[in-house]
Amino acid sequence: MSLSIALLHYPMVNKDGNAVATSVTNFDIHDIARAARTYGVDRYFIVTPIKMQRDFVERIVVYWRDGAGAQHNPTRGDALQNVEIVADLVAVGEAIARESGSEPLWVATSARATKPMMSAARLRQILAEGAQNVCLLFGTGYGLHAEVLELVDATLEPLQGPTDFNHLSVRSAVSIYLDRLLGRSGEP
Amino acid sequence: MSLSIALLHYPMVNKDGNAVATSVTNFDIHDIARAARTYGVDRYFIVTPIKMQRDFVERIVVYWRDGAGAQHNPTRGDALQNVEIVADLVAVGEAIARESGSEPLWVATSARATKPMMSAARLRQILAEGAQNVCLLFGTGYGLHAEVLELVDATLEPLQGPTDFNHLSVRSAVSIYLDRLLGRSGEP
Repeated sequence: MSLSIALLHYPMVNKDGNAVATSVTNFDIHDIARAARTYGVDRYFIVTPIKMQRDFVERIVVYWRDGAGAQHNPTRGDALQNVEIVADLVAVGEAIARESGSEPLWVATSARATKPMMSAARLRQILAEGAQNVCLLFGTGYGLHAEVLELVDATLEPLQGPTDFNHLSVRSAVSIYLDRLLGRSGEP
Repeated sequence: MSLSIALLHYPMVNKDGNAVATSVTNFDIHDIARAARTYGVDRYFIVTPIKMQRDFVERIVVYWRDGAGAQHNPTRGDALQNVEIVADLVAVGEAIARESGSEPLWVATSARATKPMMSAARLRQILAEGAQNVCLLFGTGYGLHAEVLELVDATLEPLQGPTDFNHLSVRSAVSIYLDRLLGRSGEP
């Protein structure tokens, strides 16, 4: 199987429902890279159209991967090996196609249930069969804009606990989805 | 069922194996409170012996729960309703016993498999049976010191993906364990 993930910063919804570009958060870089590395994700794309933000992320990644940070805490640099910083989803699709010969199955995630959704169990099965490259999309701010949700091949069911509250951080959401898709346990 | 979680900042192991007190991280407050609230955790204890750090956390929590932050983003204050800031595990045990009449089953988490461990599936069953209060312990820094691990009733099996790398952030680890213990899915 080949699973990539992309963390989008545009077009996002803000709390008034408008399309905005969000800022890249330092913890999103590290926490998600560490989870991606733990669960064997191929590539972690951080996607923002703002060049200054891409430069900022690049500087952080290089510091931990090749700079003084690599000496101080090598596992952190190790976790960042598969991070790539790109401007938009077109670049994500091209990067995946360059390696695998075809565009991935695009699967969005959302905290709001809207149209027919794919269960995590079903996507786990697709990944296990290994015939299809998959790219999982995560939003920031108040979530992916409708224009992204209309473009994807499927949307994963929202994560749910025993309450009606579901305002997980994107860091938590990525971690939990990866565990549902690829996690292992000593006991079945 | 009644599940509480405690995030410990002392005694932790640092990267040289010595016992240290770690600093409370702002993202640990919010991300873990949001996951706890989503998964119906009773109480989220942030535990540090350092008074200045407890005051710092208290100020952040009050800002979002009752201050200007409550207006700006009410769900953030909502997520922080169940956060309590205490000095040590004795205070955690007393707080739980005051409400339920007895000390909880203490269950540690660890990224390192050592002695016989409890599976998440088994603890999920215990919680579903509902006869026992459980308090789940999470470490910061390089993990819980051996002196904590010796005191607990059980330790949960480490989280595992398909790789040998398991350097998850504590925010990711809490989120994934809560989903394994209490998560729901549209499809069984």
